[in-house]
Amino acid sequence: MSEQTINNTRRKLLQGLGATGLAAVAAPTLAGTSSKDTQWDKTYDFVIIGSGFAALAAAIEAKKQGIKSVAIFEQMPTFGGNSSINGGLFAVPGSPMQKKEGVKDSVDQMVADQLKSGRGIADEALLRHVAEHANEALQMTFDAGAEYLPYLQQLGGHSAPRTYQTTVACGAGITQPLYKMALSKGVEMNKRCRMSGFIRGKDGAIEGVTIETRYYADRKVSEGETLNVRARTAVLVATGGFSQNIALRMAQDPTLTSDVGCTNIKGATGEAMLEMFRIGAVPVHLAHIQSGPWASPDEGGFGYVSNYSIFNFPHSIAVSRLTGQRFMNEIADRKTRADAELSNRDAEGNPVPPLMITHYHDADKHPNCKKVLKYGVGWKFDTLEDLAKHFDVPLKPLKAQIEEYNRYVDSGVDEQFGKPMGEAKGKHIKAPFMVVRLWPKVHYCQGGVKVNQMAQVEDSLTGKPIKGLLAAGEVAGGIHGVSRLGSCSIPECMVMGITAARTAAAGKA
Amino acid sequence: MSEQTINNTRRKLLQGLGATGLAAVAAPTLAGTSSKDTQWDKTYDFVIIGSGFAALAAAIEAKKQGIKSVAIFEQMPTFGGNSSINGGLFAVPGSPMQKKEGVKDSVDQMVADQLKSGRGIADEALLRHVAEHANEALQMTFDAGAEYLPYLQQLGGHSAPRTYQTTVACGAGITQPLYKMALSKGVEMNKRCRMSGFIRGKDGAIEGVTIETRYYADRKVSEGETLNVRARTAVLVATGGFSQNIALRMAQDPTLTSDVGCTNIKGATGEAMLEMFRIGAVPVHLAHIQSGPWASPDEGGFGYVSNYSIFNFPHSIAVSRLTGQRFMNEIADRKTRADAELSNRDAEGNPVPPLMITHYHDADKHPNCKKVLKYGVGWKFDTLEDLAKHFDVPLKPLKAQIEEYNRYVDSGVDEQFGKPMGEAKGKHIKAPFMVVRLWPKVHYCQGGVKVNQMAQVEDSLTGKPIKGLLAAGEVAGGIHGVSRLGSCSIPECMVMGITAARTAAAGKA
Repeated sequence: MSEQTINNTRRKLLQGLGATGLAAVAAPTLAGTSSKDTQWDKTYDFVIIGSGFAALAAAIEAKKQGIKSVAIFEQMPTFGGNSSINGGLFAVPGSPMQKKEGVKDSVDQMVADQLKSGRGIADEALLRHVAEHANEALQMTFDAGAEYLPYLQQLGGHSAPRTYQTTVACGAGITQPLYKMALSKGVEMNKRCRMSGFIRGKDGAIEGVTIETRYYADRKVSEGETLNVRARTAVLVATGGFSQNIALRMAQDPTLTSDVGCTNIKGATGEAMLEMFRIGAVPVHLAHIQSGPWASPDEGGFGYVSNYSIFNFPHSIAVSRLTGQRFMNEIADRKTRADAELSNRDAEGNPVPPLMITHYHDADKHPNCKKVLKYGVGWKFDTLEDLAKHFDVPLKPLKAQIEEYNRYVDSGVDEQFGKPMGEAKGKHIKAPFMVVRLWPKVHYCQGGVKVNQMAQVEDSLTGKPIKGLLAAGEVAGGIHGVSRLGSCSIPECMVMGITAARTAAAGKA
Repeated sequence: MSEQTINNTRRKLLQGLGATGLAAVAAPTLAGTSSKDTQWDKTYDFVIIGSGFAALAAAIEAKKQGIKSVAIFEQMPTFGGNSSINGGLFAVPGSPMQKKEGVKDSVDQMVADQLKSGRGIADEALLRHVAEHANEALQMTFDAGAEYLPYLQQLGGHSAPRTYQTTVACGAGITQPLYKMALSKGVEMNKRCRMSGFIRGKDGAIEGVTIETRYYADRKVSEGETLNVRARTAVLVATGGFSQNIALRMAQDPTLTSDVGCTNIKGATGEAMLEMFRIGAVPVHLAHIQSGPWASPDEGGFGYVSNYSIFNFPHSIAVSRLTGQRFMNEIADRKTRADAELSNRDAEGNPVPPLMITHYHDADKHPNCKKVLKYGVGWKFDTLEDLAKHFDVPLKPLKAQIEEYNRYVDSGVDEQFGKPMGEAKGKHIKAPFMVVRLWPKVHYCQGGVKVNQMAQVEDSLTGKPIKGLLAAGEVAGGIHGVSRLGSCSIPECMVMGITAARTAAAGKA
């Protein structure tokens, strides 16, 4: 008796069962139920799970490519996912603003920077694919009406100023225009809809998903029904990382307990990634979880300080409260800086968050500076004596450190930590002083499911793409290696979302 | 209609289907078929997949605990797995030989050494569990008739000499006695039998496995039948690591291509681990793959040099062929040394494997020394001039380096790399010289499925143990963190195998 026959017989057997009865067979212990038995409640050409950068870019591109019915399913009560609260920083090599400002840069140079930060295990081919298409992705946001600050920033680990930032200094400056554009193109947007499993056809191809409606993420309950949703070309999983899944992140790094701060929305729990592992996706680099070295222990989540300090690091010094001395290159890559900050501890091992000191009139150039002061997560001092007294920093070595650093500002060479001083030119550390405290927060998961340059998800046993399944954005892993450079997530998410849509449109999913 | 009813109806429907028809439903796209439909071909109390240290220790302990029928299924044509070709090095704190020799050591001290090597992400509770039971495991090998060299070794990263080594200098010195003991206790041993999937009962509990008989690993084909094998208490997966799965190891680290040497048997491909991910096991630390810094580029696999150099590192120097200088603490942990060796490259980045130089009459104390010379993977020189000429090392700095190192031997303090000099006492580097070349080979996977202290495998979505499933040995991940210390695999495998048997015997699997 062939599988076909079994399934046909089983279909008859199951006729008359509602969606609920069927879901009981499928979930949670089986990794997918056979589509032969499925009564489809909804059918679309392209089904997208999630609504962040990757999902929205995919939805828009799918429409551009002529895919007729496109639906987004988002588990949270609002659209935009974790993308909407990220820093809104977008690295693009050879961008319009670089050309205007005469900044020399290239795909090769950006890839080289990322490979270095990836510490030998990044996926060069994927990084190159993203860098080559980053301008297209940026253009999509221009077309949607996204607005950016009128200057480029040089972020930690980048060898050139190549980073745009939204005027609102967060990702919503991109997700909101993209959301509107997707709506205007006829993408169906469904919120409080949680994907609970895959529906598989012959040979394991993904033909659809089960969707629980009226989902309340805070209580983790669905008050609606379970729909069998069919995807004619592909299901794209673009659900982000798992930074808020405490058990999973502690399995990878026992120090990342629930007490450790996290910049992500509560919904970043990774269940869709775990479902993909259950159908054979290859887990890659889950152990590499990134902490953001620009975060403040004085506020929750990403807060106001993160973007403030990302902007200010090039012309600031980070000093130990215990020694008054610098302890890192302030624009090294994220891992280097986070590790250096975490070493700031007293004799008993308790954290002593270091200080970032900036000349107030340089700091004030960033839109968040006033909010940082207003909400009491940053401090302004007229004299170094006041600063030292407030934070109990030894004054004499601090003074000497600032004088030494200011000589590096003049010479253009940081003799202590080799910090590139280009963006610090003319910007002495001097009164009045702005100070924020620094302590890393869990920010980004380099790990996820292995994907190829078509956004296909590879099967761990056959090595071949799982038919009908695509993944893009933070849920995909292995691209960045040990440590992702700042502002490289938006280009990755958008380019891989666009790529997924093209794969689906070409009938290659 | 309840799941129970569906399954009952389905069972009727499927009656009359042979094992082959059923297997077609189960494999490879579904993560497990329902046991309700299963015609069991074989039934045991305890089913063990694999036949290395963990599997054999579990089988023997299961019998001791009164479990009646115990069966081992091994995919290769011989028993012992990768364990049989490992170094036969067994670290035990507070062992009989330490007591006899007056070596101060403790569980705490061994755990502390391992936590350091694990670089902050090892599982302290599991390490402690293993260290606390290591003496029991050692005793099991004594009882089985395993024989050890009459001295302890202090391996890289260990703060005390605590490592036994089998007289045959490989793991077969343990697996063969254990195999015989298991047989004598009535354990059923099946070879060329490959597990191809899990059979799940109500609520997803593992009730058995599918076993393909007459399996030919070299051709990856089964010429026998597919058996449905029932496990009344538990299935224990003890199948080792995935060092020989090129695609999977390259997904984690693109530099580990098929050109990179590997110390493991061909069967170390990790499919059983991948099957466990398909039923919801948590992937942990797959990105951390260890290379052995004691391997030689002049022979295949583990070869003769590995154990030779493990023994000799404490009283040898490792020098760069380009500079004639030392470049590492010769008994640092494995990752530290492997990374240091890999940095030995010419201006074009091509490997220039460094040299390990030992006084011949110290080197000769190791049983492999003669074989190293016989098979041309080591060289003996009467003068330093001959050595330098043969390997094109600059003589003057090499000579100065050796003189400097010999002063450290006298003073007991390595001023260059902080190597603990206790075991080097009185052992100058002098003529005649023995030399081997060093280059890391892929050796061990720190990653695998997450397990707890009862060897239970946790479900990624519920966090609870997957009922009926246990895992032990290298297939389990997360215990050692970033880098495992040498000689800590045998205690882990055996203790966790014994633990698994006790969990099964207590009816807690």
